[in-house]
Amino acid sequence: MQLHKRDVVDAATTLLDTYGIADLTMRRLARELDVSPGALYWHFANKQQLLGAVADRILESIGDVSAGWQNRVAGICGRLRDALLSHTDGAELVSASFAAGQSEAMSRILARLTDAAADAGVDPTHAELAARTVVYYVLGFTADEQSRLQWDAAGAELPDGQSVIADDANGRFRFGLRLLVDGIAAQSDSVVGGRD
Amino acid sequence: MQLHKRDVVDAATTLLDTYGIADLTMRRLARELDVSPGALYWHFANKQQLLGAVADRILESIGDVSAGWQNRVAGICGRLRDALLSHTDGAELVSASFAAGQSEAMSRILARLTDAAADAGVDPTHAELAARTVVYYVLGFTADEQSRLQWDAAGAELPDGQSVIADDANGRFRFGLRLLVDGIAAQSDSVVGGRD
Repeated sequence: MQLHKRDVVDAATTLLDTYGIADLTMRRLARELDVSPGALYWHFANKQQLLGAVADRILESIGDVSAGWQNRVAGICGRLRDALLSHTDGAELVSASFAAGQSEAMSRILARLTDAAADAGVDPTHAELAARTVVYYVLGFTADEQSRLQWDAAGAELPDGQSVIADDANGRFRFGLRLLVDGIAAQSDSVVGGRD
Repeated sequence: MQLHKRDVVDAATTLLDTYGIADLTMRRLARELDVSPGALYWHFANKQQLLGAVADRILESIGDVSAGWQNRVAGICGRLRDALLSHTDGAELVSASFAAGQSEAMSRILARLTDAAADAGVDPTHAELAARTVVYYVLGFTADEQSRLQWDAAGAELPDGQSVIADDANGRFRFGLRLLVDGIAAQSDSVVGGRD
């Protein structure tokens, strides 16, 4: 029976959602699919490539946002957070894939945020750095939120104030985005030109 | 022979630096110290507490910074990044401990950044959120940088543009900090009051 790449990514995503990223190994995945590990390496040269494909699956529903640059930043980041929270260890997996440059979906998101920063007036050499600052915030915020959600779900006792059950995570997330949007606006050509 | 808590943290930090966070387990640590796992649980109720103690060790050299609020933010964040980069998987370990609320050193750093945001004029209910936005940036930036540094060191082939060898990481880090500092300044009482 032929093993399709899409089936491998399906099985890997199910494994992630059920057991978490620590159990998402090539060996375990081969066992789930009832194939030899070698059959997986025909589709993915290494585990990083597999994780990148799972990251792209997690992020596939994030389309483009049509709006002014501020609302584009907020819209893209909100969808990114929602997608990460929809899968066990989603933030950790996508962060690792982003760092390894293995997620095409994250490259597209970074490009859209870079366009938004450029539209805000940030000069071309700095627009991608501004976009990366936003991405690190979203990944960091969501990894933190997701860790606590998963510990809460597992019934772990966390120190006071660490539980997210009664926490206005949406409001906290938006505040950070507003801070970043204001920071991007302040990097617009005229301001940077006046200070450098 | 009595097992001191400090010796356990020493051994755990050495294990981290030599083999990375994946090999930092209670079982492995007990073997290194030639004690039973039970002897470790006398000092640490669980692995999260142990990781928190290692995080505090990594961050112990980060003292206070005396300067205006902008330079305090830049100074604290620069030292935090340096400390994380000084240990294998330092950013990943400290991020996990921060999310679990297990690192006293991270709580202190967050408090100092919160003070800086308050000094910038951010109202008390938002000052900690501003500080967290900065912390997520530093942890996210450094985790990304460290992943790439460690892959480079391991001789891994990364896609074009992902290697940090020829990369001005210091300049990129400072740009993001400047954006955040400008964003914090824009959240000062008068501005927020005018928009809410």
